[in-house]
Amino acid sequence: MVNPTGRALFTSRLYAILDPAEIQERPWESVLEALLAGGAGVIQLRAKELSAKEFVEVATKGHILTRAAGGQFIVNDRVDVALAANADGVHLGQEDLPLSVARKLVGKEKLIGISTHELEQAIEAEQGGADYIGFGPIFGTATKETGYAPRGVDMLRAVCRAVSIPVVAIGGISEANVAQVWRAGAAAAAMISDLMRAEDVAAKVRRILAMRTEV
Amino acid sequence: MVNPTGRALFTSRLYAILDPAEIQERPWESVLEALLAGGAGVIQLRAKELSAKEFVEVATKGHILTRAAGGQFIVNDRVDVALAANADGVHLGQEDLPLSVARKLVGKEKLIGISTHELEQAIEAEQGGADYIGFGPIFGTATKETGYAPRGVDMLRAVCRAVSIPVVAIGGISEANVAQVWRAGAAAAAMISDLMRAEDVAAKVRRILAMRTEV
Repeated sequence: MVNPTGRALFTSRLYAILDPAEIQERPWESVLEALLAGGAGVIQLRAKELSAKEFVEVATKGHILTRAAGGQFIVNDRVDVALAANADGVHLGQEDLPLSVARKLVGKEKLIGISTHELEQAIEAEQGGADYIGFGPIFGTATKETGYAPRGVDMLRAVCRAVSIPVVAIGGISEANVAQVWRAGAAAAAMISDLMRAEDVAAKVRRILAMRTEV
Repeated sequence: MVNPTGRALFTSRLYAILDPAEIQERPWESVLEALLAGGAGVIQLRAKELSAKEFVEVATKGHILTRAAGGQFIVNDRVDVALAANADGVHLGQEDLPLSVARKLVGKEKLIGISTHELEQAIEAEQGGADYIGFGPIFGTATKETGYAPRGVDMLRAVCRAVSIPVVAIGGISEANVAQVWRAGAAAAAMISDLMRAEDVAAKVRRILAMRTEV
């Protein structure tokens, strides 16, 4: 998948979010390696509880591991950390650096994803030059208090029809309901807790990706 | 004052830290304008309680106001915000982006200051290419819980002798004790609460800068 400006977009239907704070009793490297071994093609590193120094360390190492497996590596929130780790992209929320500012800093070679929660935000992000958007929360989420009511698959479907850039559905998505968001038109499904809490992370990823062919 | 690499270093003996969270009942712009009207030559924007989006907005506007007054504008903590606002420099703590990483991102034209709390950190920062260091806390501080015991003016003097880059003394410095840190060899004195809480900020700055000639 290549967007009009030529930046390579992720090809995976699973957008795996690696959050060291969500991992119990395992080193983050082993969880990342299990995600990649299972076939996860896009990894986002979310690390709100790490210092910037630690975030750079994890992002740099995480990017190397992901790149070696042929995957794409996205840094959440921090443009400077994404630049420092030479990540493939950065994912920004509505309260992070504005899209236009971030684009000037990362250039055209890095992906920029924007978190959106309303149809208007999705359209605005596309018009502003985002490479993809996150949209959600689709379902209730176990990971964080988003401050938003679940948007549901019908609103997701409307967003997917309204924009032409890839839509990553996020929020409360698990192996049990992921097929719903793919059917609604999401290019990829973001998952955190269902992956981070799986006993066998690689097997979980394999089952999810195998399911995709049946949707 | 110009350092060996040619980057212009601040010439002011007062390093004024503007922290919107420390200002009561006044818009931050009016406090900044009062600092500049009083003659403050270096402004650091510290905004730990703002979102990155707000931080960029304040930094961009603050830099324009400061530059118009002939001053230098430094952004605290965030390299991406410093780049977005085209600030004159960035100030980094020990848990922020590492100096070597930050230098690659900002280039040689922007100042990088490093917070240090030990003689060894000061020497390390100089060897790593910092343009200046902060050292402290010198005295007990009203602004934030630093987690460090006051270092005192004797240790400040030792640091000023050990490094050749400018040392900005920080922590509990006020109009009442600022002469002590200048006498100990500090190139500049950082102040937050004594400035932010002054009824007449410009007059406070003028008194402090006038005092300098008597040290």
